[in-house]
Amino acid sequence: MSRVVKLAVIPGDGIGPEVVAEAEKVLDAVTAESDVTFEKTRFSLGAARYLETGDTLTDEDLAAISANDAIILGAVGGTPGDPRLKNANIERGLLLKLRFTLDHYVNLRPSKLYSGAPGPLAAPGDVDFVVVREGTEGPYVGNGGAIRVGTPHEIANETSVNTAYGVERVVRYAFALAERRRQKLTLVHKTNVLVHSGGMWQRIVNEVAQEHPDVAVDYLHVDAATIFLVTNPSRFDVIVTDNLFGDILTDLAGAVTGGIGLAASGNINPDGTFPSMFEPVHGSAPDIAGQQKADPTAAILSIALLLDHLGLPEESIRVTRAVEADIAARDGSRTTSQTGDAIIARLQA
Amino acid sequence: MSRVVKLAVIPGDGIGPEVVAEAEKVLDAVTAESDVTFEKTRFSLGAARYLETGDTLTDEDLAAISANDAIILGAVGGTPGDPRLKNANIERGLLLKLRFTLDHYVNLRPSKLYSGAPGPLAAPGDVDFVVVREGTEGPYVGNGGAIRVGTPHEIANETSVNTAYGVERVVRYAFALAERRRQKLTLVHKTNVLVHSGGMWQRIVNEVAQEHPDVAVDYLHVDAATIFLVTNPSRFDVIVTDNLFGDILTDLAGAVTGGIGLAASGNINPDGTFPSMFEPVHGSAPDIAGQQKADPTAAILSIALLLDHLGLPEESIRVTRAVEADIAARDGSRTTSQTGDAIIARLQA
Ligand SMILES: CC(C)[C@H](C(=O)O)[C@@H](O)C(=O)O
Ligand SMILES: CC(C)[C@H](C(=O)O)[C@@H](O)C(=O)O
Repeated sequence: MSRVVKLAVIPGDGIGPEVVAEAEKVLDAVTAESDVTFEKTRFSLGAARYLETGDTLTDEDLAAISANDAIILGAVGGTPGDPRLKNANIERGLLLKLRFTLDHYVNLRPSKLYSGAPGPLAAPGDVDFVVVREGTEGPYVGNGGAIRVGTPHEIANETSVNTAYGVERVVRYAFALAERRRQKLTLVHKTNVLVHSGGMWQRIVNEVAQEHPDVAVDYLHVDAATIFLVTNPSRFDVIVTDNLFGDILTDLAGAVTGGIGLAASGNINPDGTFPSMFEPVHGSAPDIAGQQKADPTAAILSIALLLDHLGLPEESIRVTRAVEADIAARDGSRTTSQTGDAIIARLQA
Repeated sequence: MSRVVKLAVIPGDGIGPEVVAEAEKVLDAVTAESDVTFEKTRFSLGAARYLETGDTLTDEDLAAISANDAIILGAVGGTPGDPRLKNANIERGLLLKLRFTLDHYVNLRPSKLYSGAPGPLAAPGDVDFVVVREGTEGPYVGNGGAIRVGTPHEIANETSVNTAYGVERVVRYAFALAERRRQKLTLVHKTNVLVHSGGMWQRIVNEVAQEHPDVAVDYLHVDAATIFLVTNPSRFDVIVTDNLFGDILTDLAGAVTGGIGLAASGNINPDGTFPSMFEPVHGSAPDIAGQQKADPTAAILSIALLLDHLGLPEESIRVTRAVEADIAARDGSRTTSQTGDAIIARLQA
């Protein structure tokens, strides 16, 4: 009995196509002998497409992408400062539009320091935590505006919108994840300043905590959380936080655990109403694009998250183990595809 | 000809009084032979006062504080989770109220890695930068609200308010500072998501940059900035940023440069309309209060910022040098007052 998974592939800009190519190779290799077949549809989206056609993400694109079971995305975004992209906000119009429209309310970002991975900390300890970043609310909603733009009297406002509905569902997901991990959950917010949204986050965490008496819960202000990420990152198991704080913490966490070249993420719609999307945390890095210099590991670890999401935990673990073994043995520089090949060799060993 | 400086002293809660005592000792020592006399008025403010009287900061307090030339503040805030403080937001009602009412639009936070200072990075390099954090706008304005609080239909919003007036004045300050330093300025924001406020910040930085052709300007998203703070902190000279991003970056910067026990700050009103306020970045740390365990260095370095602000650059440099020499020679543990005494001994050497 074979199962067909419809997979949307969005290679994107810059190093996106290179890292996605390796991710696909790994996906193919790990599922070669399984009963799962991937039916892939490729979407040409990003700065390049915008420059060609003026489109960022059309309704037709969205409908076609939504018809899939899952999505893998490389990276999107053109060369910073390109004057032709001045009025194109590829991030908001494409990446965030996908996350919001497909109701990716869990932005899942694991941080694990693999043995042998380079890192900036002198004594990092055992680092293995997951940030559960809310993905559809907060300061990301785009409810801002400005008046008298460009004059000395300009006022520019941004409104962070937070709902009990939106916070509760992501908090529940985080607690369930903590149950399956080391039973520790840290809420990160800035409740002493953002009293309304912070108060609601704190209240909902307290409420859901009642249902999880075995999960130890603590709270850190976002500023203090950054301190712990560099002085004692092993104190964390599951962090649950707002969209913007999650954005900031996960880049820092990526740096602490070997660099953004290793950081994977899943934009997840746990209800299954819409396809979930898996992508490396890094950007399109146009400066090194097309040179086989990019590290595809983050894209490959995103495949592990995809496999887990699809209910293929064994395949997921095989990918993670192969990456782990490869990282432990890395030395010298390799091309993007050499790294992909090395990981596949570990898979098959 | 002697000059009298009226100084408001707010020791505050927790370790505040202990570190302020050392800061005052250093201030007295370094100005002992100068023609400046400090006329000090002490204000009992913070969680302790709130618990006693129910007051956070009265109009009379504000008027009396405003009548001074400058302010030193230790730290405010009670024991986290103290039920009697549940409805007291000491941070908003006292600290932020002072910053906003006294128009402290420059929140100046230098980060320097002194030789001998402990730090979490394996190879930090030469770290010496200043964060110029906007202090009177952004998500800190308190323009939030919530409806249906405590129900499943709660909506909690927070509005970040940003004005050309407010951004321009802090950007101008940052450029002037960069001119006196290594002529490099980095704007940190999140322009790809917070397009209205970010767009205004970017535009104003571009405009003011025209008047400073010798200052090299670059831009980083806040998430990327945290990466550089741990992988290459020596790339920074002056960072100019929004109130919330500045809060986050400076705690991380403090951690990177030897810990929050060394991080000083000035809440400055450059126009001189209101007294500026100098305080360590750290909090009140009630868990170690009254035990002579706190490091007073951050409070003492805040005195260096105060002296500079008062037009006493030589005294300021003497304090900084004394701290620098003391840090280089530190070993073993000392009490709060032993550290103060050691720094005074260096001053007088
Ligand atoms: C590109 C940008 C909009 C995005 C974000 O802020 O979420 C990125 O930084 C990320 O973390 O995926
Ligand atoms: C106590 C808190 C309100 C304050 C802030 O967020 O500004 C503190 O973290 C700081 O950095 O001075």
